[in-house]
Amino acid sequence: MKQNLLTALRDIVGDTGLLTGSDVSQRQDGLLNGQSCQAKAVVRPADSEELSAVLKLCHQHQQPVTTQGGLTGLVAGAFTKADEIVVSLERMRKVIELDRVNRTLTVEAGVTLQAVQEAAEAADLFYPVDLGARGSATIGGTIATNAGGNRVLRYGMTRASVLGLEAVLADGTCISSLNKVIKNNTGYDLPQLFIGSEGTLGVVSKAVLRLRPKPSAEATALVAVQDFSQLSKLLNLAESGLGGGLSSFEVMWNSFYRLVTSGDRHTAPMNDEYPFYVIIETQGSNHEQEQQRLESLLEAALEAELISDAILTRSEAEREKIWAIRDDVEALLNLSPVHGFDISLPIPEMEAYLNQLQQALSQHWPDHHQVVFGHLGDGNLHLIIGKVPYAEKATLDELVYAPLAGIGGSVSAEHCIGYDKKPYLKYSRSEAEIELMKTLKRALDPANILNPGRVFDL
Amino acid sequence: MKQNLLTALRDIVGDTGLLTGSDVSQRQDGLLNGQSCQAKAVVRPADSEELSAVLKLCHQHQQPVTTQGGLTGLVAGAFTKADEIVVSLERMRKVIELDRVNRTLTVEAGVTLQAVQEAAEAADLFYPVDLGARGSATIGGTIATNAGGNRVLRYGMTRASVLGLEAVLADGTCISSLNKVIKNNTGYDLPQLFIGSEGTLGVVSKAVLRLRPKPSAEATALVAVQDFSQLSKLLNLAESGLGGGLSSFEVMWNSFYRLVTSGDRHTAPMNDEYPFYVIIETQGSNHEQEQQRLESLLEAALEAELISDAILTRSEAEREKIWAIRDDVEALLNLSPVHGFDISLPIPEMEAYLNQLQQALSQHWPDHHQVVFGHLGDGNLHLIIGKVPYAEKATLDELVYAPLAGIGGSVSAEHCIGYDKKPYLKYSRSEAEIELMKTLKRALDPANILNPGRVFDL
Repeated sequence: MKQNLLTALRDIVGDTGLLTGSDVSQRQDGLLNGQSCQAKAVVRPADSEELSAVLKLCHQHQQPVTTQGGLTGLVAGAFTKADEIVVSLERMRKVIELDRVNRTLTVEAGVTLQAVQEAAEAADLFYPVDLGARGSATIGGTIATNAGGNRVLRYGMTRASVLGLEAVLADGTCISSLNKVIKNNTGYDLPQLFIGSEGTLGVVSKAVLRLRPKPSAEATALVAVQDFSQLSKLLNLAESGLGGGLSSFEVMWNSFYRLVTSGDRHTAPMNDEYPFYVIIETQGSNHEQEQQRLESLLEAALEAELISDAILTRSEAEREKIWAIRDDVEALLNLSPVHGFDISLPIPEMEAYLNQLQQALSQHWPDHHQVVFGHLGDGNLHLIIGKVPYAEKATLDELVYAPLAGIGGSVSAEHCIGYDKKPYLKYSRSEAEIELMKTLKRALDPANILNPGRVFDL
Repeated sequence: MKQNLLTALRDIVGDTGLLTGSDVSQRQDGLLNGQSCQAKAVVRPADSEELSAVLKLCHQHQQPVTTQGGLTGLVAGAFTKADEIVVSLERMRKVIELDRVNRTLTVEAGVTLQAVQEAAEAADLFYPVDLGARGSATIGGTIATNAGGNRVLRYGMTRASVLGLEAVLADGTCISSLNKVIKNNTGYDLPQLFIGSEGTLGVVSKAVLRLRPKPSAEATALVAVQDFSQLSKLLNLAESGLGGGLSSFEVMWNSFYRLVTSGDRHTAPMNDEYPFYVIIETQGSNHEQEQQRLESLLEAALEAELISDAILTRSEAEREKIWAIRDDVEALLNLSPVHGFDISLPIPEMEAYLNQLQQALSQHWPDHHQVVFGHLGDGNLHLIIGKVPYAEKATLDELVYAPLAGIGGSVSAEHCIGYDKKPYLKYSRSEAEIELMKTLKRALDPANILNPGRVFDL
């Protein structure tokens, strides 16, 4: 049977389209964390028609399939097992249409995020979703995981930038919803079903992306804040005071700022004794106007005693120095063994949650380090916990995730569930919710062939 | 059996909760178009628990249910039949929680849109969804129909303002997804399933709404444009030139402007010979800054020869006069018998579509009037066709909707499908898409009791 299936797959995708043997075992299942590919074959369809034929065949054979894009996911969702075959979108990289007037970009799912950004920029437009892995991450992957990134505060997550998509269902049915209009209330909004469902309901094969006007000017400030309660007041003031221009509101806890600026990698732009540091950035079209709006905001914040110190950057070099502190993940490697977490929770709950977590971790690991930073405007915190042995990761996970259940928090703000967070899904979703997810999965993929075992077990 | 069911329903909701006989037949199924209620009973649960018990019972009896909110829908979705019972959310009007720091408002589904807006304003915050029927339309209804309205360009449709919701499935299962965080990538985003599905997959019972900072200043201009191709260039310039501040970009075709300003209801602010008139509005926090930004934009647009005339309003009275022209729907009643359409299509297709429609209509009705205005930034046009007999509505519908199929247009930008647009769903959705909608419907409502016969036939 296996040989029959492989022969039939080769008939569909041709010799270049099918990898077996050492061509498979030499591949990795993830760019950032290395497991070699366990699957028995890698199928690389050239277009949606081939993809559809491949899935139809796998469905008939009840053959489990793992979809792979750019392999930059962080929850092991693309990791394979020996009984699976991989469907890789790596040959589906066509930029199909750039519509300058309608401001949409239609692409195949294997196009990288960076290629999308560049295609938009070449037309003096802008695709707002951005993340570090942009050079490898595919659009299909960012859609399947509803990727967030650096500009969610202003532009929303990937969901807000997808107008239409084409997806192939488990049985090979091609659902083409390549909608290009912003308003379309005609029946169920099917693309929503596939966005963020981690490839378990269908394989995204094409997408219509919404482009925006390119912002041509920005202004950036670093401010110091004494008290957690002032942070949300400052956020409110920034959102209203900067009109729709606010694009970043990034908070660094003292633990983060001090760690990153204490070595010789950075010159600290202000003293390291403040409890909180915030990068505020606004984007618009006129540099002087943005600078002036941000300056007025800082004056108002000082007057309202929401901030204790402020630096308004006056050059691109100054701006880059400040962002370099926020982006310096390497400095955190000093804390090895180190564990990263991506959670979100309502702003009013953050302070108590972090204090309680600090206490709980201290009981287990007196020498641990807890470093916090994040997109406060999105309720999204990145926790870095250092000096905890890798072998005790499960205990640590439980301590971080379990308290989120009672306060409406999320065990995964951006990174999804995959395999890694499957045990903790129950802390963010009720039994009834998970049961409904399973109902949807059974309706769309009755043989459970698409990314089986990810998100939840059937 | 019927008597048994009514008795059992009365046991759940009590005497005030159940209406029968003339209490039912005296009710209307729609506020704007009058059909008296045909259903055999109206059940008015007091809370989610009662709602859940009611649906569980109806499911056991395979009893079709029509959900009613504020009865302001425009596609007859709330119209009843004799074999149905109504579940009305009119007693579920609790404002549950306003969270000022997290900026969320949690409400029961029967709360009116206006009550939501007022609760937000009382906390100096802002719920951006707005439409004419705000005083009657319920939040549950706006969610079930993914309502659009006046501020989609900046804030998106209702979907973008719902963080979480609770819905009761056909069998009475209560799915509580009352998420309050902006980022939550934990399994399928179940609220998306219910938003815009017109009550066919579940009854929305509660919602967590995302509030925004209240804009405190605005600036408004009316400009004249000579050529359709300049409109999208102007829109682009306005979106980038006004940063994120642009809140309205409303286009009136000459046909609309001339009709409305020709009588004695308005003084025309500029001559009526331009092909297009656009209201541009920007919102922010500082009146002088907004005024200045809009003035710079108008200068740039004049310089680029995108506009031929411009009025920047200098007072609230001037501003209101301009909006009064755009909002004067009554002037259109002169064209009786008159038919309204709510469609969307890609901007590059608009001009050709409207010209061809004009020709086709002229062949059928030489004396017809075609009047056009709309939210151009959203691709959403409102067409008013006058002097076509009501009896010929089906022919007219076909002429308006059929050409949208080939150009990626939507037969319903905001108003949904209900009963009225069911014959035309095929022009915006493929057979495979409609089949997938039916798969979802069967999975969630196997006995087909929730709003049966709306959107599509099973």
